[in-house]
Amino acid sequence: MEGKYLPYINCPDDVKRINEDALPVLAQEIRDELMQTVSKTGGHLASNLGVVELTIALHRVFSSPDDKIIWDVSHQSYTHKLFTGRREKFDTLRQPGGISGFTRRNESEHDIMSGGHSSVALSAAFGIATANKIEGNADYTIAVIGDGAFTGGMVYEALNNAGRAGDGTRLIVVLNDNEMSISPNVGSLARYFAEMKATPRYVNFKSQTEKALTRIPVVGRPLVKGIYNTKTFVKNLIYNSTMFEDLGFRYMGPVDGHNITNLINALEGAKAVNAPVVLHINTVKGKGYEYAEKAPTAFHGVSAFNLVSGEPEFSQPSFSDAFGKCMVEAAQRDDRICCVTAAMGVGCGLEEFSRRFPERFFDVGIAEQHAVTFAAGLARGGMRPVFAVYSSFLQRAYDQIIHDCAMQGLKIVFGIDRAGFVGADGESHHGVFDAAFINTIPDITVMAPASFKELEMDLHRALYDCSGPVAVRYPRSVDIVLPEDFIPTGNDFDIYGDGSKKTAIVTYGRCFGEACKAKKMLEEKNIEAFIIKINTVKPVNNLAVKAALSCDRVFFFEEGQRFGGIGETFGDKLFKFDFRGIYRNVAIEGEFPVQHTLKGLMSMYSLDAEGMFNKISEECDKNG
Amino acid sequence: MEGKYLPYINCPDDVKRINEDALPVLAQEIRDELMQTVSKTGGHLASNLGVVELTIALHRVFSSPDDKIIWDVSHQSYTHKLFTGRREKFDTLRQPGGISGFTRRNESEHDIMSGGHSSVALSAAFGIATANKIEGNADYTIAVIGDGAFTGGMVYEALNNAGRAGDGTRLIVVLNDNEMSISPNVGSLARYFAEMKATPRYVNFKSQTEKALTRIPVVGRPLVKGIYNTKTFVKNLIYNSTMFEDLGFRYMGPVDGHNITNLINALEGAKAVNAPVVLHINTVKGKGYEYAEKAPTAFHGVSAFNLVSGEPEFSQPSFSDAFGKCMVEAAQRDDRICCVTAAMGVGCGLEEFSRRFPERFFDVGIAEQHAVTFAAGLARGGMRPVFAVYSSFLQRAYDQIIHDCAMQGLKIVFGIDRAGFVGADGESHHGVFDAAFINTIPDITVMAPASFKELEMDLHRALYDCSGPVAVRYPRSVDIVLPEDFIPTGNDFDIYGDGSKKTAIVTYGRCFGEACKAKKMLEEKNIEAFIIKINTVKPVNNLAVKAALSCDRVFFFEEGQRFGGIGETFGDKLFKFDFRGIYRNVAIEGEFPVQHTLKGLMSMYSLDAEGMFNKISEECDKNG
Repeated sequence: MEGKYLPYINCPDDVKRINEDALPVLAQEIRDELMQTVSKTGGHLASNLGVVELTIALHRVFSSPDDKIIWDVSHQSYTHKLFTGRREKFDTLRQPGGISGFTRRNESEHDIMSGGHSSVALSAAFGIATANKIEGNADYTIAVIGDGAFTGGMVYEALNNAGRAGDGTRLIVVLNDNEMSISPNVGSLARYFAEMKATPRYVNFKSQTEKALTRIPVVGRPLVKGIYNTKTFVKNLIYNSTMFEDLGFRYMGPVDGHNITNLINALEGAKAVNAPVVLHINTVKGKGYEYAEKAPTAFHGVSAFNLVSGEPEFSQPSFSDAFGKCMVEAAQRDDRICCVTAAMGVGCGLEEFSRRFPERFFDVGIAEQHAVTFAAGLARGGMRPVFAVYSSFLQRAYDQIIHDCAMQGLKIVFGIDRAGFVGADGESHHGVFDAAFINTIPDITVMAPASFKELEMDLHRALYDCSGPVAVRYPRSVDIVLPEDFIPTGNDFDIYGDGSKKTAIVTYGRCFGEACKAKKMLEEKNIEAFIIKINTVKPVNNLAVKAALSCDRVFFFEEGQRFGGIGETFGDKLFKFDFRGIYRNVAIEGEFPVQHTLKGLMSMYSLDAEGMFNKISEECDKNG
Repeated sequence: MEGKYLPYINCPDDVKRINEDALPVLAQEIRDELMQTVSKTGGHLASNLGVVELTIALHRVFSSPDDKIIWDVSHQSYTHKLFTGRREKFDTLRQPGGISGFTRRNESEHDIMSGGHSSVALSAAFGIATANKIEGNADYTIAVIGDGAFTGGMVYEALNNAGRAGDGTRLIVVLNDNEMSISPNVGSLARYFAEMKATPRYVNFKSQTEKALTRIPVVGRPLVKGIYNTKTFVKNLIYNSTMFEDLGFRYMGPVDGHNITNLINALEGAKAVNAPVVLHINTVKGKGYEYAEKAPTAFHGVSAFNLVSGEPEFSQPSFSDAFGKCMVEAAQRDDRICCVTAAMGVGCGLEEFSRRFPERFFDVGIAEQHAVTFAAGLARGGMRPVFAVYSSFLQRAYDQIIHDCAMQGLKIVFGIDRAGFVGADGESHHGVFDAAFINTIPDITVMAPASFKELEMDLHRALYDCSGPVAVRYPRSVDIVLPEDFIPTGNDFDIYGDGSKKTAIVTYGRCFGEACKAKKMLEEKNIEAFIIKINTVKPVNNLAVKAALSCDRVFFFEEGQRFGGIGETFGDKLFKFDFRGIYRNVAIEGEFPVQHTLKGLMSMYSLDAEGMFNKISEECDKNG
């Protein structure tokens, strides 16, 4: 690591020791480090480039970890990590055993909450600020939340609750406004924020007044406090009324989020208020890297790329691309088809769909709950909606799937992307819950294709041959190579191999490819097995279970949580049909899988061919 | 049913035929009917008394079911039911086989969505309005949402999304402002709504202008439309800017929600706008019934009561009361104890707690997501939070339990009330998912007490002897009578009876009482069984499973969903330990249980003593 300042920063106090004039140099060194590292490791680039100055200002003004900085989602916490003892390990970012791309409580006392999901920081921060107030602790709690995350309803629940907290609640919300979620930000709020920023009188006043007032450390703070406490004066004379003020917060901003001095002054001002404050700052996503500034969506989350050309390493088509292609074809044929996304349009492969069918494409913001019920409304109104969503984010809409889809019997199709392990994003992002949590819901069908071909068949079946809600779940993966003699039928299940053999492997989705390899390996050891490939994982077809009844040993392999999962349901049905052989259920044993390569994770949980082979041959050795 | 008008209303057109002058008489007839019926059947009284005039106005101005009225939660849809073909069945309200206390799609084409959970109506309505727009359908969609429901974040997600829809989206949001959720409404928004109403210039203008403009049917509408379309004029000159306008809606109001003529005029005005409108109306919860107006919380949801005295039938202490008592005692001893509720403080038995420890009692509004993460923040800040919540509403916070509790390893206690069947509230309210959905989550403990005594023991254990998040789930019930020779140990499980017998009954929670009776009945038939009473349902203690291994037959009875439930996990563990006997898992077979008496529901799913006895003796007869 090169540079004049960054190599010597080992803790937040080191940031405080640097002369204020030199901070822009530090910022450049950080940007160089971020670009160098992320171009190799992949990760969130654009958002981190956008908050370099903010992170410097926060660690100068506040004393972490006594003052608690909570990064919403925390994909933008890289500079924070560089400042809090993880500089030397920074090249292990997102690598097996390395530091996480999100805040992780087990990594540092400066990571106040483990992150990954959006719109939660204010709730947690208000909890901490409230505890501090009860305990008579004068430390500050700061939540840094992007404007994208403000499209999630939880932020508003927290604003409604915290806005009444009043004096003595030392809570500062930094609204990091870059006009982006993963994709360009959508909805009324985006327009509203833009309007707030476009009022020149307002901005001018802020920059002048704040500078003038907060620069004088001793006199300045009480002055600022005076102004903010004189609510009528502030509201009527100087400030426009903002939504945040309507909700009980003091509002400051907008402030240029790349001007460190302004940021420091503004944060000092916010500190002086002693009641919940929203500080609105403007940042440029991708700041300082030309390609990222021009294409912040492409550089939101990236794989390794060429720093000079900005070009990603070559990538093959993914299940997301295959899904997007199916949707375009479906929409061409059927004008009832709509696609709904919660700020994941590009990630879910819907770029072409959104261009070609803009009137039937709905990006509702980071709002999975609304997305599901909105889709239910579309269905109720006669359309055929498909909600494309990452598995781990669909967790947000569990109740809406129950109450607004299943209980209504409405036909909504879920395209569940990134179902199963996702690799480097780790604990918060693995799609290892969806099969289990949807398993608990009545009157919903779930299919798990193992190849692009099956994805296409399943989507067609979901759209036209099923009633009620249907989910099609598929992995974050390129197409999966399956044996040539496996011909998918599109039925609830397929048998691969000789169904009269005494050992059955039962599995679904990505694991099927591994099971085929394991079957071969077993044959070489003279263990003859066949595979029950479940396509419809909910409800499990009784005939799929009956296909295993004459076996001595049945092994279920599931890339998902064991408890509540499909493997448990399959076993329960084996009991129902009085199966008396050996049943072994191999899945994730009630834990959060760590960040690792896909290969490493599949191996860790015995879900790769080798692991399956070992589990089965061990059992055969044991029981003869 | 008596009255001059109500007995002749069989469909919405009949409401339109009544002379406008006679509508207040109709309103009184409706109130009489509501009070008579609900005093016998129980149900939601106060909220229905509050929307009599609104419902009349809606069915006069709009043409249901072409125009679609969506009642949020829909506990306030009784008058709507009286108008839409269910008047003669109204005395079957909430009875087995009778009409539901909520809208139900299978009951009437006028029930657009089945309801029960809060804050979803706008999302569904915007979906329908969007479908209408795509299809060129000029019908209106109206969402009626209480101010309480506006504390739920989903409404805001929908506002953000719908506010940009613009012209041609015929969507009307009626904000029914009665300053109440189940409990008095809380948070900044409540204060904000109050401020909006308290601005005299504003109110005066509205009432004068609207009357003047909309009374002239032909000229009036275009005039109103003209005003609403001249946004700058409206905002700067006449109307204050409101949060709704910031979010892209046109705002009208406040209007007196008990003045039918004003309501009709305002709705006609809203109809003329042809873009998303919020119409803000003021209503009095409990209007027209003295006791309910004075104590709207007590009359929110009621059991049968004496209409003359306003007194409820005598009721015994419930698990909620026992929980509240434990919390008060805990808070006396330990000043870290906090209680968080999402507008269910009274229902969860926390009235005394809230009075005695106001600084440690947090009603966050109808905001389960925020509640969980806020509690996580309190825990992170050193407090010991307990979130008291109804089982069916905790579904909203599935992701937050995963991401903000379990993944953080933070100690948060969940008091899950109304776990299991709730009876008359039906499909949307049965707490039959929590055991299964929490089963899917790592690193969380779940206990299921079967009596007040066990509840107390479990709460103590949850607060002091467990690490990480812990849930204690208990039924909507009075204390459960257990055999005198059963002494609860507070361990993960208890054995009741002679553990060497060959038939085991495994169960937890309320079902244990039934299992004890079933055991006795079986003994009379010479079938000797013992009971494995599971107290810690997650994780299931392996020793509890091993206690069943030498049995010939094991029966698991679960008052919850079978798929993903504890019974499946228990069976999977039996396989793990190579159990080769018969295992039968009796639970809810992947469906939504209907409204019924508790007794009826327990019988319907073979979870009462008789049902258990029958299941077991049948199996014994079959297998000798």
